[in-house]
Amino acid sequence: MTYCVGVLLRDGLVMASDSRTHAGVDHVSQFCKMTTFEQPGDRVIVLLSAGNLSGTQAVVSLLRQRATLGVGVHTIWTADTLFDVARVVAEAMRDIKQRDAPFLKGTDMTFNVSFILGGQIKGEPPRLFRIDAEGNVIEASEDTPFLQGGESKYGKPLIDRVITPTTSLEEASKCVLVSFDSTMRSNLFVGMPIDLLCYERDSLTITRKRRFPEGDLYFTNLSARWSAGVRQAFRDLPEVEWEW
Amino acid sequence: MTYCVGVLLRDGLVMASDSRTHAGVDHVSQFCKMTTFEQPGDRVIVLLSAGNLSGTQAVVSLLRQRATLGVGVHTIWTADTLFDVARVVAEAMRDIKQRDAPFLKGTDMTFNVSFILGGQIKGEPPRLFRIDAEGNVIEASEDTPFLQGGESKYGKPLIDRVITPTTSLEEASKCVLVSFDSTMRSNLFVGMPIDLLCYERDSLTITRKRRFPEGDLYFTNLSARWSAGVRQAFRDLPEVEWEW
Repeated sequence: MTYCVGVLLRDGLVMASDSRTHAGVDHVSQFCKMTTFEQPGDRVIVLLSAGNLSGTQAVVSLLRQRATLGVGVHTIWTADTLFDVARVVAEAMRDIKQRDAPFLKGTDMTFNVSFILGGQIKGEPPRLFRIDAEGNVIEASEDTPFLQGGESKYGKPLIDRVITPTTSLEEASKCVLVSFDSTMRSNLFVGMPIDLLCYERDSLTITRKRRFPEGDLYFTNLSARWSAGVRQAFRDLPEVEWEW
Repeated sequence: MTYCVGVLLRDGLVMASDSRTHAGVDHVSQFCKMTTFEQPGDRVIVLLSAGNLSGTQAVVSLLRQRATLGVGVHTIWTADTLFDVARVVAEAMRDIKQRDAPFLKGTDMTFNVSFILGGQIKGEPPRLFRIDAEGNVIEASEDTPFLQGGESKYGKPLIDRVITPTTSLEEASKCVLVSFDSTMRSNLFVGMPIDLLCYERDSLTITRKRRFPEGDLYFTNLSARWSAGVRQAFRDLPEVEWEW
């Protein structure tokens, strides 16, 4: 399992992913699911991966190789738009799927890889995409300014209520972290460390990045303060008006 | 889809269910999913149903018939404990499944019925159970004082943070309502009216009951106040400590 989320704001992007992978309950490991490609002054590209680790690692490796060798019409380093980068990622996914999927037939495994792609390329505003296992691409907009991957349900109501396109990067970062806390409490297969990245619009460089490991003091404090805040918000709600 | 939840508190029980049923996106209807059996002074039994409407209605009809005719070792009216009532419900579910399941083979339908059962029978404390499609029974305890059915993930983080066995019936009622609001925002197949029931320990009568229809003023106000409270709780959280 995985939980990852990307948020598109007027001020930039907030992206975050967990680090837990598992094959059954007794084969739990830690892998970073955030990959960044940065050419300061030209582009910042962030990929969050969800699904089968072998599949996501293969896709990222292929993307890197093709970028280095300059294979294809576009690569991550040469694409003019983030939409073209999304197409490059989708193409790599489809190629890996074509290679691997026949060998998964008759097993209980599927090629269930997906990516959240966010970033900015010089000449465009920041953009945010989700690319699913089939290579289909969805772009975030002002109506739906965030995209999630993996175990998304536990964290969604909170982000829904708090984040709008005009939310600040700081507020959105806190909200995303709390959505991780809620998700990890409910699903053991989502786990720390959490990788959090904050990208300021038009900076064309990664503004801030932070890893929150197990037992991180700030994160623990955030979680406790949030629980207290939620309980306070409850005390302030109007009493139920019963009919009888 | 459905969302329903039962909460077991030192002070009693809070039970709630939505009313939306659907067969595809263009066949959406409204059905009450809360069934109560009350013999004041002797027993209060509340059933919340989730899953295929034909299945849950069949089970409830069979339970009523058997209770009226006195069929079986125990019935809803004669069982000495709520655990025995859970067995009576499970038996009815298994009988209906045995009758119907063979006819579902080769279709894309399954017998996916489940129930949350709460209440009190004279001589025991209030108890809360979940009975799944196979007729397996789980009982809530102080460690896990709530049980959910249907689309449970959106509402769970909130209940997790707020409700403990010592939470008051009033607070728990508000929390359950907010968990419905969060769920309905995220899943169109969970919908109003919401039926909410509050049972005070040892009263052996239904203490309070309320239906919240679409556009209910109290519910709308609760939702708005909660959103404002959550945003305030965010503003009070400590700023993220970035590494760079």
